[in-house]
Amino acid sequence: MGRVTTRHPVLHLGPDSARQRIEVLAVEEPLEIRLDGSRFVVTMRTPGDDVDLVHGLLHAEGVIATAADVSTARYCAGADADGRNTYNVLDVRLAATATPEAVSARPVVTSSACGICGTDSIEQLQRRSRYVLGPAEPVPQEVVEAGPERLREAQRAFVQTGGLHAAGLMSADGAMACVREDVGRHNAVDKVVGWAIRQGRLPLTETVLVVSGRASYELTQKAVLAGIGIMVAVSAPSSLAVELAAAAGLTLVGFVRGASMNVYTHPDRIVARMPGHLVR
Amino acid sequence: MGRVTTRHPVLHLGPDSARQRIEVLAVEEPLEIRLDGSRFVVTMRTPGDDVDLVHGLLHAEGVIATAADVSTARYCAGADADGRNTYNVLDVRLAATATPEAVSARPVVTSSACGICGTDSIEQLQRRSRYVLGPAEPVPQEVVEAGPERLREAQRAFVQTGGLHAAGLMSADGAMACVREDVGRHNAVDKVVGWAIRQGRLPLTETVLVVSGRASYELTQKAVLAGIGIMVAVSAPSSLAVELAAAAGLTLVGFVRGASMNVYTHPDRIVARMPGHLVR
Repeated sequence: MGRVTTRHPVLHLGPDSARQRIEVLAVEEPLEIRLDGSRFVVTMRTPGDDVDLVHGLLHAEGVIATAADVSTARYCAGADADGRNTYNVLDVRLAATATPEAVSARPVVTSSACGICGTDSIEQLQRRSRYVLGPAEPVPQEVVEAGPERLREAQRAFVQTGGLHAAGLMSADGAMACVREDVGRHNAVDKVVGWAIRQGRLPLTETVLVVSGRASYELTQKAVLAGIGIMVAVSAPSSLAVELAAAAGLTLVGFVRGASMNVYTHPDRIVARMPGHLVR
Repeated sequence: MGRVTTRHPVLHLGPDSARQRIEVLAVEEPLEIRLDGSRFVVTMRTPGDDVDLVHGLLHAEGVIATAADVSTARYCAGADADGRNTYNVLDVRLAATATPEAVSARPVVTSSACGICGTDSIEQLQRRSRYVLGPAEPVPQEVVEAGPERLREAQRAFVQTGGLHAAGLMSADGAMACVREDVGRHNAVDKVVGWAIRQGRLPLTETVLVVSGRASYELTQKAVLAGIGIMVAVSAPSSLAVELAAAAGLTLVGFVRGASMNVYTHPDRIVARMPGHLVR
């Protein structure tokens, strides 16, 4: 497939020019995910690594725990008006080990009763996670601060379109094990986590998740559910992302700028150049 | 309320320092929207302008067409564990003029049959829009290119947290009629469109929608449904956003950098300094 980018004519207006040129765009297309024949969800995504995406998404929704819970994942034979397969419908057959009760529940952002508030949803999430985040071998500050640059190096399409988010799984020695891009930040994270699920690597306790943008609740939740130890965001986290990371034991790092960064929660997983503490 | 930002201790690691300091975070909290007593959706958002947000969201979902379709929108009396109102549950009562058939349909990203592809969903969307985008008084290039800077000027919280997206409704003379911020890009757009709905200003044919980030399919769809004539994104649009804008008659501008910009579709609504054409 390789439909990650496409070319499109634009009218480029400058201070004293107006000329047509060809720009490279990040491809966005809908993906319909079916579970055992029924539509589960339609998500917009950049085509490519769809099977990883589906594994990551189903894991975050609590439908599967391991790759063995997926019996098969194949593109539907459906075709568009010109008779071509769209590769935009993925049929997933679940194994008997999957949790069908989660399938019947609609994948709403979060489930809650009246009196919903941050604390409630965080407690609910903690119960859902399959992994308890324990202590891990600390990662040097230098490795953490190099994460965003390593991610950018691995991003080829980003340079072309400026329109793709990225997520990467980095080991404690700074090597990027898996990097994925998407127009949607959550999809990029689903793709790397899904890759790890298919490799049997969960929980990712010794792994640093690097994301190209901000840290929202949704992304942080996906990290916690995958058992990730350290999450590094290039930009700012939201308040609920910090609350969730604090409660779940995740080390959340943001605003990485050259050799400086903010550690929002659990700094004990990072070996700082200089000693420091976080008091609450 | 004013819970747009919050303060949080972080450990700031520098090249040769490690010290605790207080950082300002963008607040993210769940909002549960109920329609006539039943839960419709839970969305993460930055608190504030929730009634605008709900009007914009219900409009984009096809539930309401005008403010008159909403009878009342009030915070639920529910309280958290400490007995405080969370202001995170909004009860909406629909008027008889609202379209209940849309309510029963789950607000999935897009509805589709097998053989789903970009073209299909775009055709489906065009049928859904209440407005046909016709010709409008063209807007000077200078006004369009100044949009992102005007948006940043209007953003106070962004400077503090670096974590908030913004959307603004700008008139053809460059005045910002309404600017809203949120941790979610789609929420910021829902808030400004919802504001316009409550003011009875739809369709927004003569209005420029300025968004702080990229132009996705979802944001472009919201613009089309509100009858907006020109959408300006600071960064890149996705392929599907461009396809949708082209089909719906929306002028889509991206990559605004100082005095240069890319016009992806329908440049006839912009008075360029130099003449130019877009040939397909």
